[in-house]
Amino acid sequence: MDWQKINMNYFNDITELSPNEINFLLELSERLELNPEPNALKGKVLGLLFLNPSLRTMTSFQSAMIRLGGGSFVVSPDMSIHGLETKDDVIMDGKSAEHIKEAIPVISSYSDAIGIRSFANMNNMNDDIEDKEYKKLTKLVDKPYINMESAIRHPCQNLADWKTLNDFDVPKQNGKFVLSWAYHPRALPLAVPASTLNMAVLRGMHVTILRPDEFQLPEAIMNKARLIASDTGAKIEETSDMNEAMFDANILYAKSWISPSHYENLEEETEIRSKYKNWCISDEWFESAEKSCRFMHCLPIRRGVVADHSVLDSARSIVIPEAKNRLLVQMAILHTLLK
Amino acid sequence: MDWQKINMNYFNDITELSPNEINFLLELSERLELNPEPNALKGKVLGLLFLNPSLRTMTSFQSAMIRLGGGSFVVSPDMSIHGLETKDDVIMDGKSAEHIKEAIPVISSYSDAIGIRSFANMNNMNDDIEDKEYKKLTKLVDKPYINMESAIRHPCQNLADWKTLNDFDVPKQNGKFVLSWAYHPRALPLAVPASTLNMAVLRGMHVTILRPDEFQLPEAIMNKARLIASDTGAKIEETSDMNEAMFDANILYAKSWISPSHYENLEEETEIRSKYKNWCISDEWFESAEKSCRFMHCLPIRRGVVADHSVLDSARSIVIPEAKNRLLVQMAILHTLLK
Amino acid sequence: MDWQKINMNYFNDITELSPNEINFLLELSERLELNPEPNALKGKVLGLLFLNPSLRTMTSFQSAMIRLGGGSFVVSPDMSIHGLETKDDVIMDGKSAEHIKEAIPVISSYSDAIGIRSFANMNNMNDDIEDKEYKKLTKLVDKPYINMESAIRHPCQNLADWKTLNDFDVPKQNGKFVLSWAYHPRALPLAVPASTLNMAVLRGMHVTILRPDEFQLPEAIMNKARLIASDTGAKIEETSDMNEAMFDANILYAKSWISPSHYENLEEETEIRSKYKNWCISDEWFESAEKSCRFMHCLPIRRGVVADHSVLDSARSIVIPEAKNRLLVQMAILHTLLK
Repeated sequence: MDWQKINMNYFNDITELSPNEINFLLELSERLELNPEPNALKGKVLGLLFLNPSLRTMTSFQSAMIRLGGGSFVVSPDMSIHGLETKDDVIMDGKSAEHIKEAIPVISSYSDAIGIRSFANMNNMNDDIEDKEYKKLTKLVDKPYINMESAIRHPCQNLADWKTLNDFDVPKQNGKFVLSWAYHPRALPLAVPASTLNMAVLRGMHVTILRPDEFQLPEAIMNKARLIASDTGAKIEETSDMNEAMFDANILYAKSWISPSHYENLEEETEIRSKYKNWCISDEWFESAEKSCRFMHCLPIRRGVVADHSVLDSARSIVIPEAKNRLLVQMAILHTLLK
Repeated sequence: MDWQKINMNYFNDITELSPNEINFLLELSERLELNPEPNALKGKVLGLLFLNPSLRTMTSFQSAMIRLGGGSFVVSPDMSIHGLETKDDVIMDGKSAEHIKEAIPVISSYSDAIGIRSFANMNNMNDDIEDKEYKKLTKLVDKPYINMESAIRHPCQNLADWKTLNDFDVPKQNGKFVLSWAYHPRALPLAVPASTLNMAVLRGMHVTILRPDEFQLPEAIMNKARLIASDTGAKIEETSDMNEAMFDANILYAKSWISPSHYENLEEETEIRSKYKNWCISDEWFESAEKSCRFMHCLPIRRGVVADHSVLDSARSIVIPEAKNRLLVQMAILHTLLK
Repeated sequence: MDWQKINMNYFNDITELSPNEINFLLELSERLELNPEPNALKGKVLGLLFLNPSLRTMTSFQSAMIRLGGGSFVVSPDMSIHGLETKDDVIMDGKSAEHIKEAIPVISSYSDAIGIRSFANMNNMNDDIEDKEYKKLTKLVDKPYINMESAIRHPCQNLADWKTLNDFDVPKQNGKFVLSWAYHPRALPLAVPASTLNMAVLRGMHVTILRPDEFQLPEAIMNKARLIASDTGAKIEETSDMNEAMFDANILYAKSWISPSHYENLEEETEIRSKYKNWCISDEWFESAEKSCRFMHCLPIRRGVVADHSVLDSARSIVIPEAKNRLLVQMAILHTLLK
């Protein structure tokens, strides 16, 4: 591997990276784990802007900056500043005392790079798929920026998942990756399923999306994945039949998501979703899978709801090394953006 | 410039600094921007105590310490510790579990310097003008301390504003500085208008205070400014006539503040203030000003209420570089107090 | 003193340390104060997990890591993540979105060491005395860990208190240490009284527990202390008579705690406790004590409730140096665990 640096001004979407760039970041992750560089980012500052809650992302980015010799600060919805206003042309006579048009350039001016989290608002599916809100935010930044989960992307998770698949020797070309919907008491965004699908397809895998019929992913997302697949030799299938999906599977990647066809009617969505409370991953799901089939999830996960305790407590579950890889790939991303 | 250090034990009030000290800090700000010193404050700790919310101050101080190789910790009203008790001789059988008489010396003992924010409580104007509460707090500190905005002072903002005026080549002696009241849905403290007036007068400028008659600044504040002006050659005028004030202006510095004459009757204050909702800075305000007239504000600012979107989005507005200068002057202050 | 390192994998309980280990940590505390080591823990990360609020612990650990060249991150109940689920085998369809079985290994994987705070839940006294909940948490950690106060332990406080006794030349073998109950509006855990008793007994002191009859410490706690005393030559007495207890005392260490015999009936506990509102430490308490008798408390302390203002404002009170020692001993603990 040639350690000549790759050129990156932001880390926004796994599909924007070339195979070479992905390899570079994954190998740099390993190198930084084996050979720490506690002076690499001396005096460098990462601004972390969370418009939504976080545990893993917040702590792993803080840790990453310390390990590389720099530091970070957090702006989060926990803080007693009132919520930042995001709407254009609004008369701000309500609760919000500051507009993102000031807040983001200011935070950016205190930082060498900035991480931004802005979840889907789930009002308008097309806006979310186009990542309209997040793009509005990044346009206000004049520094390298990192997507810490937007309406439709979670690239740090995707890269960590890719590394995890490598770490556990899951085959690329013929590895069978089942992306399964699971029940959750709340309607959750499409960011993880959509970008995980892209990741697995980019990696050339045989992907099966397992979900109840009402939870079919939107055509725009499927089409993008199919386009990538035609390039990487990946296969994409969809089914609502668990036995069919899990046959010979190497990976069961669980995640709940909103019913796309009920995006604009959350009441009905709740009704439909509640029919599928039995979509809780249990040991039986793995019966026809490869013996070594692993269980993945981006966390947080509701035990006994999304997956059984026994699945999470078994050797199948690799959710902890998967989460640890968040730290390692983010160190590589920061090193690449800032050094 | 002789880089022999100036001697500073605290940073409390812009009017306590000599012209030489102000120059030193402004030039050090520039030097630290051009030539970072990521080892200067290695192992040094800044304790940040916020009795009121903060975005800019909290993040810029954290960033400043990281850039200089040290670090900071934050104590803020967001934390689940109950509010700190500040009253003397009180029987603490209510919500507050800790008194500032313990909390501040303890925080101070963990720090090499401490920043304190304590806004005006706006119960008693004389107490606020004398900065009684903040002084009580600083008496409990045995380390260098920094005023991060008290009832009547905001010296970090003042020094950043001074640097901003220099950066944009606003003339000192004959530069016309309009400090204008603006509407805001809440009654806001006098700290920014009072200390900004002092800053502009110290800088020798021609200052016009533009405000509705009921928002005349208190005599104690005006007298102090006049005394400084007699020394620096500055001019001070007051008017409620926008056209008169803005004629030939180099700077329009907007800020809302409470009606001083209704300090003890907030209900009446609200009524009076609401008559002036039209005091929202718009493009028309600049018609008779210098062509290059700039718009300043300490932020946060309510768009469409304090100033129009079009003003903030225009090239006139220098609120972002102004905010960035908070970071740079604070680095100089910390470097001077701690190195 | 031989600076050969002691071997420590966790810092959990003062009674688990040998006299040599305690000496080592106390001397290292002094050395690090006199000779800072701002490169010692370069690139090292301390994860701080608070399941309960904190001021001193949170800020002193952050400061300690910065002083040693590393850094830390905080997970606290203030954060907008919902409360972490701790129960086994639960179906997580309520508020909690994440289980400690995921959260703790993840946080641990981002850290070189982890500090954990988990107060007594005060439902079941035996569970609290056995530190059941805290032990459940530490079993999930695969890194060095530090007890930042659990149901029955507060070892960082204990070590800081030991150092404070040394700093003020309080005699070991014959020093008279009065551990006194005091009134507080809320029922408080046994962690501080139980572990402070152990500390004083380990130090070989003459300990008198002064408390109303209903606030006798549980037999399990007393028995453990008596066992240690038989080893160190310490004496242990109990009384509800203030004059008897305070005679010739070198130290009055105040702390409120729950009535152990009413652990399962908090309503009755409140009733009984409220009979003793006069147990507020006042100057009169010291009349028959040694002239140099000092007042200690772990803080936070309610002025006018637990102790009079005059006691806390007198030269007797050493609560501030006591709190400062938290920082110094924690630096020694971190240095030992991580370097």
